[in-house]
Amino acid sequence: MSYFNAMRGFPEAEYADRVARAQAAMANHGLAALLLTTEREFRYFTGFLTRFWESPTRPWFLIVPASGKPVAVVPSIGAPLLERGWLEDIRTWRSPDLNDDGVELLADTLNELSADGRIGLPMGHETHLRMPLADFFRLHSVMGPNRLSDDRGIMRELRMVKSVAEIEKIRAACSVADRAFARVGEIAAPGKQLDEVFRRFQILCLEEGADWVPYLAGGAGPQGYDDVISPATQAPLAAGDVLMLDTGLVRDGYFCDFDRNFAISSASDEMRDAHGKLIEATAAAFDMAKPGALACDLFHGMDSILTGGKGGAEAGRYGHGLGMSLTEWPSLIADDRTELVDGMVLTLEPGIETAPGRMLVHEENIVIGAGGAQYLSAPASAELPILNGAAGGEPA
Amino acid sequence: MSYFNAMRGFPEAEYADRVARAQAAMANHGLAALLLTTEREFRYFTGFLTRFWESPTRPWFLIVPASGKPVAVVPSIGAPLLERGWLEDIRTWRSPDLNDDGVELLADTLNELSADGRIGLPMGHETHLRMPLADFFRLHSVMGPNRLSDDRGIMRELRMVKSVAEIEKIRAACSVADRAFARVGEIAAPGKQLDEVFRRFQILCLEEGADWVPYLAGGAGPQGYDDVISPATQAPLAAGDVLMLDTGLVRDGYFCDFDRNFAISSASDEMRDAHGKLIEATAAAFDMAKPGALACDLFHGMDSILTGGKGGAEAGRYGHGLGMSLTEWPSLIADDRTELVDGMVLTLEPGIETAPGRMLVHEENIVIGAGGAQYLSAPASAELPILNGAAGGEPA
Repeated sequence: MSYFNAMRGFPEAEYADRVARAQAAMANHGLAALLLTTEREFRYFTGFLTRFWESPTRPWFLIVPASGKPVAVVPSIGAPLLERGWLEDIRTWRSPDLNDDGVELLADTLNELSADGRIGLPMGHETHLRMPLADFFRLHSVMGPNRLSDDRGIMRELRMVKSVAEIEKIRAACSVADRAFARVGEIAAPGKQLDEVFRRFQILCLEEGADWVPYLAGGAGPQGYDDVISPATQAPLAAGDVLMLDTGLVRDGYFCDFDRNFAISSASDEMRDAHGKLIEATAAAFDMAKPGALACDLFHGMDSILTGGKGGAEAGRYGHGLGMSLTEWPSLIADDRTELVDGMVLTLEPGIETAPGRMLVHEENIVIGAGGAQYLSAPASAELPILNGAAGGEPA
Repeated sequence: MSYFNAMRGFPEAEYADRVARAQAAMANHGLAALLLTTEREFRYFTGFLTRFWESPTRPWFLIVPASGKPVAVVPSIGAPLLERGWLEDIRTWRSPDLNDDGVELLADTLNELSADGRIGLPMGHETHLRMPLADFFRLHSVMGPNRLSDDRGIMRELRMVKSVAEIEKIRAACSVADRAFARVGEIAAPGKQLDEVFRRFQILCLEEGADWVPYLAGGAGPQGYDDVISPATQAPLAAGDVLMLDTGLVRDGYFCDFDRNFAISSASDEMRDAHGKLIEATAAAFDMAKPGALACDLFHGMDSILTGGKGGAEAGRYGHGLGMSLTEWPSLIADDRTELVDGMVLTLEPGIETAPGRMLVHEENIVIGAGGAQYLSAPASAELPILNGAAGGEPA
């Protein structure tokens, strides 16, 4: 199992425990197997970590039977890497196959492992099926009626609560971003183009230990930014701008997701106050984030500070789950009554309107413990940091 | 339309042309609308470029009606960016909504735009549906029978042939990677850990102009590597290793996808010969890559050189399409009879077994023109390059 490097991956017991918990839930729900198709679902039970999922060409299938280890039905190209992991039953076909890209092999394997039982697939919120829809219909037709059903939320329930080892992975990713954010003074100053700042920030993340940087968003302007999802423009930073960088970097397969705001050269009182209010809202939610609290409680706690309780902004939520994906269940919104439990990892992400169509957003990452929350990111101070350009190392 | 920066994005006419070609094909196939859910499909008709798709939480929908501009049905968080583009009809809901995450709004919009007509979704090879399956079933149930069908391969046909402007984007991405590969001597030498080489190579890509680096794979060993999808290990490079780096970096929304092999300090005759054979196979396919040739012709042309015509390796293909995604249709395999036409962008990716379970792989990017192919990557010479570590700049 050479892909379980020192300090990398998890011991086999971690995967065995995940499978055991899945199988207990499957028994409760009368499911004979789970059928999984996405990178996150596949890796959750196997540790199979490769950026090859970036290629949409080939489907990958994992079956969790009612007992025993998961069984993989995968393109041959994946076998050498997968064989280094803990699975024993790896069935392959030569993909891409334009006539049958694994569907018959998958159906045979499902029938063998589940007899006439019901097979659960994740179908709910924040999930998708990573195989061609025509192949799914073909599978459905081969398997017969009432065999494929939803997974009763089992994958959501499992992934939403992190193990101690998973929490350490997320903490390590957060530490990388902490160190990169501490160096933003090297790359941001009046006159620097925002797209160049984005490029250099990704370099900082890599230098500080990111394996890769799947997500970076941000914005800049004298009264904040107009959204938090746009790519960087070529506009230069100006004195008085507030610059925000929001990164989802990955280390050993786990994300951090938090942002930092920086005033370029100087900050207006208005921006300082807005930033202070965001930190106040974050701290309030942090204090509420204990086992037994509901996701919506944290939303309302922040919203009372941010809007006086008007119900939040049209565009956003005030945080979400975090782990193998940049965003996961639950959502910090008024309607999400998910109860927080020990081991959940969340982002707290309050936003505030600073002018019509302009905003500031702040974000931290926390973990719920038995006695309350802990920060995984090093929490920002209420004071909006001011970059004076003194630290600036010019890119080569 | 401020996100159409100078040298970035496309003029509106590019999108209008894509829509016109889609609508002509829809008319031929009797489709009243297309329903699209993935980042690539959405961006193809809108130019909507954001890394926010990394978040799996929210679904995004685009409808191409029989005439007129596409209509977006999207989470409110996307509206500010989308409104800067060329669409006029943007309908939003506050997502995530745990009761109805856009399905009713989508169904109403589809009914309004397509009357009782048939709606095509990409369902074939290399596609997937990016929305919860339960929501798809709900949509199906609301719309009634026989409304949702496959798109008759329209999206495949459109995206497989690139416009002149798209080809220039891919060429620009290739140039960035060319410059990064030219600097590998700065980061790779005996004793360097492979994971650190991966990290530093991503930095080189960013320094040379990548917007981000979604894909990097590779390997190293004295007789090549055991697969081409594994993440980097912490094993140090040794004199005599062949190091391979394969990058899919993105510039302005388009990928390159090619690799380079490097001998560390010295190269055996066996590795030199293998590399020379890969270049020979690449050149043979390049010469065959003209309008009217079939994808499988290129496969057989390479395979006769690589294996004497045994039909290729179990794991791989010898190349594939390239564009907005790292890998696209067609596949250079024995069964793919796709006819090459002017404007297709392909990778040529021959691989050769060097020992049981060990291989060398080479890859170039080309575009098919009326008179033959052109290289988009600067083609490697037959001589396996040897890194002597002289150029080495130590990372900070």
